[in-house]
Amino acid sequence: MLEQLDKQFVLQTYKRNYVNFKKGINATLFDETDRDYIDFTSGIGVVSVGHGNKEVADAICKQANNIIHISNLYAIEPQAKLAEKIAKLSEMDVATFFANSGAEANEGAIKIARKYGETKFDKKRYKVITLEHSFHGRTITTVKATGQASMHSPNFAPYPDGFKYDARIDDIYNSIDDETVAVMIELVQGEGGVQPFEKKDIQELAKFLKEQGILLIIDEVQSGVYRTGEFLASNLYEIEPDIITLAKGLGGGVPIGAVVTKHKDIFEAGDHGSTFGGNYLSTAAASKVVDILDEYKNSGQLDETIIYFDSKLNELIKKYPELLLEKVGVGLMKGIRIKDADSLAAIISKAFEEGVLVLRAGKNTLRLLPPLTISKKEIDEGFKRLENALSKIS
Amino acid sequence: MLEQLDKQFVLQTYKRNYVNFKKGINATLFDETDRDYIDFTSGIGVVSVGHGNKEVADAICKQANNIIHISNLYAIEPQAKLAEKIAKLSEMDVATFFANSGAEANEGAIKIARKYGETKFDKKRYKVITLEHSFHGRTITTVKATGQASMHSPNFAPYPDGFKYDARIDDIYNSIDDETVAVMIELVQGEGGVQPFEKKDIQELAKFLKEQGILLIIDEVQSGVYRTGEFLASNLYEIEPDIITLAKGLGGGVPIGAVVTKHKDIFEAGDHGSTFGGNYLSTAAASKVVDILDEYKNSGQLDETIIYFDSKLNELIKKYPELLLEKVGVGLMKGIRIKDADSLAAIISKAFEEGVLVLRAGKNTLRLLPPLTISKKEIDEGFKRLENALSKIS
Ligand SMILES: Cc1ncc(COP(=O)(O)O)c(C=O)c1O
Ligand SMILES: Cc1ncc(COP(=O)(O)O)c(C=O)c1O
Repeated sequence: MLEQLDKQFVLQTYKRNYVNFKKGINATLFDETDRDYIDFTSGIGVVSVGHGNKEVADAICKQANNIIHISNLYAIEPQAKLAEKIAKLSEMDVATFFANSGAEANEGAIKIARKYGETKFDKKRYKVITLEHSFHGRTITTVKATGQASMHSPNFAPYPDGFKYDARIDDIYNSIDDETVAVMIELVQGEGGVQPFEKKDIQELAKFLKEQGILLIIDEVQSGVYRTGEFLASNLYEIEPDIITLAKGLGGGVPIGAVVTKHKDIFEAGDHGSTFGGNYLSTAAASKVVDILDEYKNSGQLDETIIYFDSKLNELIKKYPELLLEKVGVGLMKGIRIKDADSLAAIISKAFEEGVLVLRAGKNTLRLLPPLTISKKEIDEGFKRLENALSKIS
Repeated sequence: MLEQLDKQFVLQTYKRNYVNFKKGINATLFDETDRDYIDFTSGIGVVSVGHGNKEVADAICKQANNIIHISNLYAIEPQAKLAEKIAKLSEMDVATFFANSGAEANEGAIKIARKYGETKFDKKRYKVITLEHSFHGRTITTVKATGQASMHSPNFAPYPDGFKYDARIDDIYNSIDDETVAVMIELVQGEGGVQPFEKKDIQELAKFLKEQGILLIIDEVQSGVYRTGEFLASNLYEIEPDIITLAKGLGGGVPIGAVVTKHKDIFEAGDHGSTFGGNYLSTAAASKVVDILDEYKNSGQLDETIIYFDSKLNELIKKYPELLLEKVGVGLMKGIRIKDADSLAAIISKAFEEGVLVLRAGKNTLRLLPPLTISKKEIDEGFKRLENALSKIS
């Protein structure tokens, strides 16, 4: 019934699993038959504080009963307060523009970089270097910013000029020319295969770019908001990028994106905008999410959860060395390299049958992005189910 | 205090009014001193069912306590149901992709048009014709799609090729060449000055484009969801466009956008996507909004409100013929052409002082976009205050 409805009325841009989830409690989802599933996906890194989080739901309820939205022509107190929190937690001297998704946040970042390139140099600079296994979004410009060649389908051309791709961090140095204005990377590539870069390499790159006056844009749409164990992956890598983009985990599920930058004066009134961006509802929800996670981090619980999840992951990999090649990732942004793509597909589908939701990333990476607030019991149960799935494959 | 916070932590892309709204009830907003304002803006056409709408707040609360978000890898029942409602109410055989804003909806529409142009003709077609006073969004591609030359700042270049602008509907016929794949217009230009086109002209254009195999994209981000008195402005104009985009009023304030198209099979899996787009929270809210407005329309109340609002507007214009040149717009998307831009600025600021919120559009249009559910009492009070403002100017 749901399948039929979906196929008739929704454009089929996803090959969907037609389970019908009705309720969620933290990292556990329930379908219409009341079957439960351990959620190691959190909606691809979105439901950072778990499903049905009471505090977030209360904040949303309260805000919805007062004001959901006015417009950015008037000040919006929860927006300003959220921007202040982001600055404090990032420990950087930054200001924020709010958008409604990761793609929109990256559009804002690219616009900032381009204005910088137009206005701060004698000769215009406009090229942005990105990496081949990156993912930056689905708007026409962020599709082009995404380095994966397969994404640049002629179907959606013409794309805007000004993007250049490198295979590795090391290659960026030689790619830079006198038209380069920015380098835009993820610190832990999410869609590309849960691939973190070396801290040393990133710090060197950041230092070099700063010396050259070239902007460093860090796409933290997936890695941000405590996903790696710190508020920002940039904090973990101890760098201060020029621009950071956030989305996914920030609103606990309410659509929101953010462009965070040191260049507080680069945009003038009229340079950019968004009808919904930063409205009362999305920023009230995000404020609560950030408060919950800040406390969760400070109390030591986040680190404990990461360590516990990691130990279970290590155990599992040890048991299936033929199938599970290697652990990758940081914090609760973890992956397992799988022998081959077919085995990966089989694992994902068997895992679902056993009642645990997992993700694919890149060609052969099993990706695990549980809610950051997942309980030990849920972790235990999830790994038990994952092991059941694996035992039926090997 | 709010002003300082905003200026320090939020990128200054808007010249904001630093009033601090704390609560809203239908078309009335209250600031922190409990002063009330009649809202003739509804957050630029967003809060279609009013502020603090109890039914919408309840739907949001309920959904937030169950599931806010999973991911589009799994079916989402409220998404499929909302898509079904959109098809039924549009009275067209269409399917929908959900995005998070008007700009994102238009990106999706342009991607569909381009894929159509790449795959359905012997020789690739990719050009999209738009109008000079249009507004289509703030992503790099939708900025370029927007016809206003002032929007195409070199600051954000290079833009993607493939957009062409015409001053008037009539000019489109001569602009079309063998690379033209689509024409994208608003039926009532919102930002451009609340400018509706002639029904006859639009119907002729639609007929001509259909004969030529060129797509008609109607940007109903502002005009959609009963703003003009019908579910779609396209219904009012009695046309069946190839693609319709929605956003603003659809979610009652929750960020959501929609690309609605007859070309149900144009996108394949992987062609497009969005992390948040169509999630449980935004589609549950939008479903409730659409239900409320459907009933409001069917009961005759919407038409009554439009007629009443219109009569008050006529009265006002009659009283200040020197200042208020002409009434424009349809439904509850109304405007008054003002003598000049300076007078308009003075009116907006005096209106605020008198406790009624109004908008600018284009150079010299006072724009009125009240919640569709505004009460007669609120209309009376709003016009009384607007008149007080005018009396202090003329
Ligand atoms: C690193 C990164 N950037 C950008 C995006 C795009 O975000 P959205 O889907 O919210 O537009 C994603 C989504 O997966 C992402 O992982
Ligand atoms: C007709 C039209 N299209 C697109 C947009 C862009 O919508 P958003 O601000 O939600 O991206 C707007 C916003 O004002 C609009 O009026």
